[in-house]
Amino acid sequence: MRCEIITVGTELLLGDVLDTNTQYLAQELAKRGFEILHLQTVGDNANRLEQVLTSALKNSDIIITTGGLGPTADDITKEIAAKVMQKPLYLHEETLNGIHAYFAKTNRVMPKSNRKQALIPQDAVIFPNDHGTAPGVAIENNGKIIICLPGPPRETQAMFDVYVQEYLKIFSTSVIVSHRICTFGIGESAMAQLAGELLDMKNPTVAPYASFSESYLRVTALAETRKQADKLIAPVVQELMQKLGDYVYGVDAESLEQVVVEMLKEQGKTLALAESCTGGLIAKRITDIAGASTVFGYGIVSYAVSAKESLLHVDKQTVETYGVVSEQVAKEMAQGARHVSGADIALAVTGAMGPGADADGNEAGLSFLALASKNKVEVKRLFTGRNERNANRFMTSSHALDMIRRYLMQDLSKTQEGM
Amino acid sequence: MRCEIITVGTELLLGDVLDTNTQYLAQELAKRGFEILHLQTVGDNANRLEQVLTSALKNSDIIITTGGLGPTADDITKEIAAKVMQKPLYLHEETLNGIHAYFAKTNRVMPKSNRKQALIPQDAVIFPNDHGTAPGVAIENNGKIIICLPGPPRETQAMFDVYVQEYLKIFSTSVIVSHRICTFGIGESAMAQLAGELLDMKNPTVAPYASFSESYLRVTALAETRKQADKLIAPVVQELMQKLGDYVYGVDAESLEQVVVEMLKEQGKTLALAESCTGGLIAKRITDIAGASTVFGYGIVSYAVSAKESLLHVDKQTVETYGVVSEQVAKEMAQGARHVSGADIALAVTGAMGPGADADGNEAGLSFLALASKNKVEVKRLFTGRNERNANRFMTSSHALDMIRRYLMQDLSKTQEGM
Repeated sequence: MRCEIITVGTELLLGDVLDTNTQYLAQELAKRGFEILHLQTVGDNANRLEQVLTSALKNSDIIITTGGLGPTADDITKEIAAKVMQKPLYLHEETLNGIHAYFAKTNRVMPKSNRKQALIPQDAVIFPNDHGTAPGVAIENNGKIIICLPGPPRETQAMFDVYVQEYLKIFSTSVIVSHRICTFGIGESAMAQLAGELLDMKNPTVAPYASFSESYLRVTALAETRKQADKLIAPVVQELMQKLGDYVYGVDAESLEQVVVEMLKEQGKTLALAESCTGGLIAKRITDIAGASTVFGYGIVSYAVSAKESLLHVDKQTVETYGVVSEQVAKEMAQGARHVSGADIALAVTGAMGPGADADGNEAGLSFLALASKNKVEVKRLFTGRNERNANRFMTSSHALDMIRRYLMQDLSKTQEGM
Repeated sequence: MRCEIITVGTELLLGDVLDTNTQYLAQELAKRGFEILHLQTVGDNANRLEQVLTSALKNSDIIITTGGLGPTADDITKEIAAKVMQKPLYLHEETLNGIHAYFAKTNRVMPKSNRKQALIPQDAVIFPNDHGTAPGVAIENNGKIIICLPGPPRETQAMFDVYVQEYLKIFSTSVIVSHRICTFGIGESAMAQLAGELLDMKNPTVAPYASFSESYLRVTALAETRKQADKLIAPVVQELMQKLGDYVYGVDAESLEQVVVEMLKEQGKTLALAESCTGGLIAKRITDIAGASTVFGYGIVSYAVSAKESLLHVDKQTVETYGVVSEQVAKEMAQGARHVSGADIALAVTGAMGPGADADGNEAGLSFLALASKNKVEVKRLFTGRNERNANRFMTSSHALDMIRRYLMQDLSKTQEGM
């Protein structure tokens, strides 16, 4: 079936907000075998929206809009979609009660204007909003469908994942199944080289792509059933994992931090962190994972030199002799963190993240990572070398997580060898 | 003048690539007073592109496309644009020489297919490509213009900055200036209610919108000069700020954390952090800001109870009597952090972030924030009440930053009163 995505909002036309909903929905629809011909953005303008919806209905079977479901007067998407589909709006009591409850839960009274969000086009399917007040709707008429989703990406994406994709299932006649091999520490083209002629396959296809700090291979099969697709995919994933070795941190893994927390849990080990230049980012990423408290108890953000000395017992002399950004200080930070926390392993990082060189002349992107365990301390010099502070910080935190992952892998294989 | 942006590429329709060109161009055009009505994306399909360009020419004066200027057969944008504008293509020798030189510079020979990139529509203005081989063109006919730019963001953006904006200068007769009033702690509809009839103004316009945890008012004026626009805007911003009071954390502010770091710097104060449930997120946000080290030196992520006791000197008895998630523990954490660090103020947070209630039965989203200063400790009970862990964590960290901001505001007004 032919699909179009229309995002609505003057803030998008002005470039104030980057439209990420379109990419998300396009990917999800493509995966499910829907054909997407056209993407559009219009402002909060009733005439333009009506014009665009009307012409989209001529070319496509399913139109998905995002945005313009808010409580204010310039939120008009649902109203215009209902008009175009010739369905009058009515007040849906259950939705209204839900909105009241949403406000009550955080001890607020629903402003009168939010009542508008409980107006539903006749016969429409309602998609609950688990993260906000605006429900989504699917309006059907004459074999055409307009699906209106809220604008905030969290709400759009959760609503699509939980409700809309279920709704769309009956319209999709084939399945596209895809798995993602996640790697860290290898660039996209080097990874592609290792994958070799597997990149030329037709079904499944193998496509390399990269995010800011990681590289992935997406293996995608088209088949009539999920089972058939899985059968096509499995041997290819297997072969790719062998070729890529320990660069692979997971298949369909959520994130490096998720994998690290899982490994710590499995091995019954605890972790402590001592962060200077990453300023809490590694701790933040670890504690993003629900249940991290079973493996992580102590994090110290020793941004000041005095904090390294008083909280981590780094020797003043070491700092004076080698400088704050040094192998030696990283080492003592890791040992200090392990000592203070009693954790099995402690990771420390000290570095210069920019912009520009630091007061000691360390280039932006230079850092030292240290991992202290029972019998030893490993140290790694890292240079991420970007001009941008947050890029250096994020990459450094990823390398730190990967250092923990690789330690746990080795440690595991040693244990297994010893068995 | 009315503008449209059309990005071309099947990879965009499939969601494989995030379209960032559109946002960039939209911002640049809006800044220069061009009115943007419509944004579109189509695939590498000649018929669809021709259809979309033809209909765009009816509604707009200037159309900017990106993508489809490459050397392969599916790159068709320039060809279709020339067809729609009834301008035949000719081989532009100088451009061809430039492409040859580009390859020579990296010791390569130009593949034959690249010759296509030197074909130029008759009478078109040529924009050199300083970062690649495909030149851009502006094709004029009957008072309408189609500007074709390359797809890779680095090439698009550099070409726009250096050449296209110069070319567009003669078409820009007005400027649009817009300012953003940033608020925290008030929902979008409540904020809109406070703004009242100012939302109905015509020039400047006042538009409410919201991100995940903040609400904004955009005040936008259209005038012949920037100065005139500023004159229209200033009194409206002033009035809105009065109506919104201390919900406003800044005008055109980058972020809450940026404002907090600036305020600390201005007041010459230092901050320490003791984080339990936010797990380093507040420290991460503070240290995202370059130069944060002058005001922030100590952060303690006391995820474990034992860390609260050993690093922050929280009394074991307090934890046993009141529970880890309590006003009393938050208080002692803040006092401990202030004591350990010697900072002027210390903020602490303890809570349950979910998913689900914690072991003590605290609901997901419940937290206590404490701010310790020289003579007192303030405590605040917060309930963000989401089902999702990261949503609770982010909102809690924002409330913590806002608590610091409000303290610094009060502290400042007290100092000023005492002067």
